[in-house]
Amino acid sequence: MTGRDGGADLHPIGNSPVVILVRPQLADNIGACARAMANGGLFHLRLVAPRDGWPQEKAWRTASGADRILEAASVHDSVADAVADLHRVFATCPRPRHIVKPVLTARGAAAEMRVIAERALSAGILFGPERAGLDNDDMAQADALVRYPLNPAFMSLNLAQAVMVMAYEWWTAADDTPGRVLMTNETKVATKGRLENFLTHLTDQLDACGFLRNLPKRPGMVRNIRHLFQRGEVTEQELRTLHGIVTELAIGRRQRGRLETEDGSFDPETKGPSGREHA
Amino acid sequence: MTGRDGGADLHPIGNSPVVILVRPQLADNIGACARAMANGGLFHLRLVAPRDGWPQEKAWRTASGADRILEAASVHDSVADAVADLHRVFATCPRPRHIVKPVLTARGAAAEMRVIAERALSAGILFGPERAGLDNDDMAQADALVRYPLNPAFMSLNLAQAVMVMAYEWWTAADDTPGRVLMTNETKVATKGRLENFLTHLTDQLDACGFLRNLPKRPGMVRNIRHLFQRGEVTEQELRTLHGIVTELAIGRRQRGRLETEDGSFDPETKGPSGREHA
Repeated sequence: MTGRDGGADLHPIGNSPVVILVRPQLADNIGACARAMANGGLFHLRLVAPRDGWPQEKAWRTASGADRILEAASVHDSVADAVADLHRVFATCPRPRHIVKPVLTARGAAAEMRVIAERALSAGILFGPERAGLDNDDMAQADALVRYPLNPAFMSLNLAQAVMVMAYEWWTAADDTPGRVLMTNETKVATKGRLENFLTHLTDQLDACGFLRNLPKRPGMVRNIRHLFQRGEVTEQELRTLHGIVTELAIGRRQRGRLETEDGSFDPETKGPSGREHA
Repeated sequence: MTGRDGGADLHPIGNSPVVILVRPQLADNIGACARAMANGGLFHLRLVAPRDGWPQEKAWRTASGADRILEAASVHDSVADAVADLHRVFATCPRPRHIVKPVLTARGAAAEMRVIAERALSAGILFGPERAGLDNDDMAQADALVRYPLNPAFMSLNLAQAVMVMAYEWWTAADDTPGRVLMTNETKVATKGRLENFLTHLTDQLDACGFLRNLPKRPGMVRNIRHLFQRGEVTEQELRTLHGIVTELAIGRRQRGRLETEDGSFDPETKGPSGREHA
């Protein structure tokens, strides 16, 4: 049943959990679920008594290319039939009910499903119909309930969105992307020595133009400028750009200084000694 | 601009990040985004140059009741205008580009946005148009990029799904629901003493019916039964049910024993001493 949905273009994970849509109503929701599943690396879809029958052309239109998941989907008369070959079953359950069962967050369920997959066992997760959700008999088929932490004042979650959150957590549970990295691509992060070269260039030019002429305040001002450039990682390319900016501004100032010495719009008093260039 | 979307029915978080849809194409996607925002406790929506103008009736149909978010949405000519009053801007970016900026996961971005909100600063997150995504000029307006860890072989993420993942992470970042709990509702988890009472009742009846007649194996069998019931938390209600099951099975056996002593289908040899009842 799950043999054909392992297309090379979807990078299937052999033992990924089965998504079981129980009595789904709208075919375009089924397609949107398949798309969300592909996003998160879930590839096994089962449909229990889809209201309008199966297959439905509409589903392919909203699947945005996750066709293999739809093609490999199996149809079942009952939840019991759909879970018969599985080892562990989770049921998504937005509202609290009087059932004594473990209740997991989506993240908690994803972590458990990863452990189950590592043991080469099969897990499935039940999603109820669009309006009513899973009924008590459906939930009695499950080992554990999954309740997403979401705004309790607005729990109306679209079916494909519910699948998306679970698929996202499934993928994330095995993902080790750091929460924050600097993307540098071809360019390299500059060494502190190169940053220092630039700060020296900048300070020299600021001395030259008179910006740092208040000697008592000078150390603090230089320190503030240093803090500004130390705040994030600066790349070598950015340092080259900054050197260029400072050099060009200084040249422009000196040229303007020559051209506009009689022009009140530019005060030559603020100019420092000229002729200092960055080595 | 964000004053009216604070309806009591949506439990707004005053300083929640602004969702900025850049050149969105389909009004029903805008509505679905509003619904996802409400699910995750995001209430401030801005639209940059929506293709078909604004407002669009279709959006209200897919918002499933998140009307206040749509009603309070503001429309802007440019990204620069939409972010002008914000302190920090994130840009969702599914594909790697040659941009030197911090890149965060959705979870990493949510954590940073929580810190920003705690400092009473305003954050915004840019989502690009359905087909093309954000362009380089859009991303240059952002302090950091957000790239979701998802199946790299199938990155085609629906706009509302992209908003859903971010809204879900925003909510989850401030949520302390344990990953796994036992939902017991009215009934209480049984104490070990009450579990022991039941195990004694069960063992007595198993002795009585002869199930434990192999004395060398008896300790191991009793231990295995104990393990079975110790595996998860058992509630008081469940223990009452189990007591009832054991008692009724034992009564049935004794009655059958009386009625069917001459019947080969029931071997009276395996019956233990009768008359032992659970106190």
